[in-house]
Amino acid sequence: MSKELVFGHQNPDTDAIVAAKAFSYLQNKLGYDTEAVALGNPNPETNFVLNYFDEPTPRVIKTASNEVDSVMLVDHNEFQQSVSDIKDVTITHVVDHHRISNFQTEQPLFYRAEPLGCCSTVIVKMFDENKIEIPAQLAGLMLSAIISDTLLLKSPTTTDQDKIAVKTLAEIADIDYEKYGIEMLKAGTNVAAKSDQE
Amino acid sequence: MSKELVFGHQNPDTDAIVAAKAFSYLQNKLGYDTEAVALGNPNPETNFVLNYFDEPTPRVIKTASNEVDSVMLVDHNEFQQSVSDIKDVTITHVVDHHRISNFQTEQPLFYRAEPLGCCSTVIVKMFDENKIEIPAQLAGLMLSAIISDTLLLKSPTTTDQDKIAVKTLAEIADIDYEKYGIEMLKAGTNVAAKSDQE
Ligand SMILES: [Mn+2]
Ligand SMILES: [Mn+2]
Ligand SMILES: [Mn+2]
Ligand SMILES: [Mn+2]
Repeated sequence: MSKELVFGHQNPDTDAIVAAKAFSYLQNKLGYDTEAVALGNPNPETNFVLNYFDEPTPRVIKTASNEVDSVMLVDHNEFQQSVSDIKDVTITHVVDHHRISNFQTEQPLFYRAEPLGCCSTVIVKMFDENKIEIPAQLAGLMLSAIISDTLLLKSPTTTDQDKIAVKTLAEIADIDYEKYGIEMLKAGTNVAAKSDQE
Repeated sequence: MSKELVFGHQNPDTDAIVAAKAFSYLQNKLGYDTEAVALGNPNPETNFVLNYFDEPTPRVIKTASNEVDSVMLVDHNEFQQSVSDIKDVTITHVVDHHRISNFQTEQPLFYRAEPLGCCSTVIVKMFDENKIEIPAQLAGLMLSAIISDTLLLKSPTTTDQDKIAVKTLAEIADIDYEKYGIEMLKAGTNVAAKSDQE
């Protein structure tokens, strides 16, 4: 199995960064050789999350075809949101929760999308289907991604499955997701930073 | 939940006809209101299968938007292979095993594709994930679809998962799939019909 890169969309948000890490972890457990990377630097919210869980920032790439022949996409599919040389690599897997547009492949592939509030929620289901355990640190990251995409389960895109996933992940990560979620969303709006300056 | 039509590609083969029936059965068990239809008449092989399992021929439709707002696609995705007015309906689900091309949606949707030898093999996995039992008659139909697409597990597109699915389905349907498979493939090549005329 040759190495593959796993990444979310350009201008990554927390789900784009975390879903890449979660799917890469799962795929490596299933025998693949993957590295989770990113197409841009983490935003303030994601930096808060990575620091909180003592998780390294993913390596940022500009192109993929100089390193690998095949890639796996998470949290996006549209070519204009993907890596600049997406047309020069083979897409073997996509896990997403968006509409499909400006996307095509030459070969059959693994494509898993569900109309849920967060890509990480789809990945939680895939861990369960494959009977692979989610480690506590990764559970905390995935919990953060769902809180981020659904604005602490308040946004209209939130589904029951997102709510169930948040509860399950909070238990694994042993976190009070209401308290943590507010802190995390605040870090994302730079409110914390501003108030320090006032 | 408003009614949805489920169908395979134009000039349907056994997998296109059977995957529609299997996915419609599964989705109805999960609370949807769907009817499996077809975009053309069954070919000789599929007629052999439907007769063998005493299964009705699906209703054939020319257009969908006169009947429903939403549809579910199986065993295809490319618009030029789908119903003629595919652009006038909302695609809520796709289950397939082909490459993706000339396909797009306005809204997020459920999309499940895996590079396996048969669409029905993907659906067997979905029955398992949703802990829904496959009735014997449907198991026989799905077994036939996998035998058809993989030429009795001999074609290069055959995967281990197709082999496992065939064994599982053969047990449920209580069928010797080697013996049955040869008879079925023969029916498809009209050899049987020709030899009667000689
Ligand atoms: Mn995102
Ligand atoms: Mn997302
Ligand atoms: Mn087909
Ligand atoms: Mn097929």
